[in-house]
Amino acid sequence: MTRVRVQNFTVSRDGIGAGQEQSYEQPFGHVDPGELFTWAFPTAGWPGRTDPGGSRGFEDHLTRDFARNIGAEIMGRNKFGPQRGPWADESWQGWWGDEPPFHTPVFVLTHHVRPSFSLGETTFHFLDATPADALAQATAAADGQDVRIGGGVSTVREFLEADLIDEMHIAVAPWDLGTGLKLWESPEELTDRFELERITADSGYTHCFLWR
Amino acid sequence: MTRVRVQNFTVSRDGIGAGQEQSYEQPFGHVDPGELFTWAFPTAGWPGRTDPGGSRGFEDHLTRDFARNIGAEIMGRNKFGPQRGPWADESWQGWWGDEPPFHTPVFVLTHHVRPSFSLGETTFHFLDATPADALAQATAAADGQDVRIGGGVSTVREFLEADLIDEMHIAVAPWDLGTGLKLWESPEELTDRFELERITADSGYTHCFLWR
Repeated sequence: MTRVRVQNFTVSRDGIGAGQEQSYEQPFGHVDPGELFTWAFPTAGWPGRTDPGGSRGFEDHLTRDFARNIGAEIMGRNKFGPQRGPWADESWQGWWGDEPPFHTPVFVLTHHVRPSFSLGETTFHFLDATPADALAQATAAADGQDVRIGGGVSTVREFLEADLIDEMHIAVAPWDLGTGLKLWESPEELTDRFELERITADSGYTHCFLWR
Repeated sequence: MTRVRVQNFTVSRDGIGAGQEQSYEQPFGHVDPGELFTWAFPTAGWPGRTDPGGSRGFEDHLTRDFARNIGAEIMGRNKFGPQRGPWADESWQGWWGDEPPFHTPVFVLTHHVRPSFSLGETTFHFLDATPADALAQATAAADGQDVRIGGGVSTVREFLEADLIDEMHIAVAPWDLGTGLKLWESPEELTDRFELERITADSGYTHCFLWR
């Protein structure tokens, strides 16, 4: 049975997952992803790792889990790129170079659809659809595996509001950001619908596991 | 590169992983495995789970990790069965029924070898070999994947003493057993050779991650 999962999604202690003023140079806006993902980058399993080595403790179990049994991802257009409105051209193929870390079909939610394309092992499709309709297409593409809701913040919130998420792993940094796109005030907001377990790692990050 | 891993191995707070007086009825001797593995049995990913459901928090990440990238297991004869000395007959095929949870080649260390046999997706081989020689055979069989050292206590200790282990996940219960087969006095014994991270779950168990 396909489950709908959020994984390795990272926010500040005050719930902010991305900054404002996203641009080509700053995919997370004013937030430095190198700072936000301090928990993940040193692990052996981080999908973006290019050199051998890395830590193999608790948090490595989480980064390694990114690809496990995932058959498709759904992301918002602002995870795919910084453009807004109609595409000026269709040369943009995402931030991830020639081999994006997804290795599955990826469904990009946008009011401005464009043709599908493949890059490495990943195929990007563009959908102007409700969360439920997008999930139906992603579930069919996942072929019995799970569907990852990849973010950003607005996309995760839309799927939460549509009550379509089965489980989430959210990493919470030990410091505040103050301004930016906010996932939640606190994970307690979700305990009416989800089980919640919070685990603090040696990195200082608190990992929230929510499931039902 | 093949890594040599111990996973989901569980001991009491005083380091005891199995009891004395193992028998056909009591694979863990005087220790009740239902009590020892309290952290694991409720998780969705526990390999022995036969019904749907189960928790999907932190500890589920650990039970799901049991099979990830494992190409072979090495176990001691006393994990395979309660017999000692020469085999009276060769009808015993392990504790696990028609579909053992390994799904890979399994190498059983014993001074009393017997012919290999397959059961479900698992093939059991019997070796009278040093840890290093057994590991060489298991590594070849794992074909680029990792090798799990499956236990029991004596086998894990032999591989530690031969300095052949790359990483370990050991679950430590929040209570003592007093007598039985002891893995360690404390994980601190290994910090001269391993990184150590300790994480306490809502179950009360402390999960020790050791790696290098």
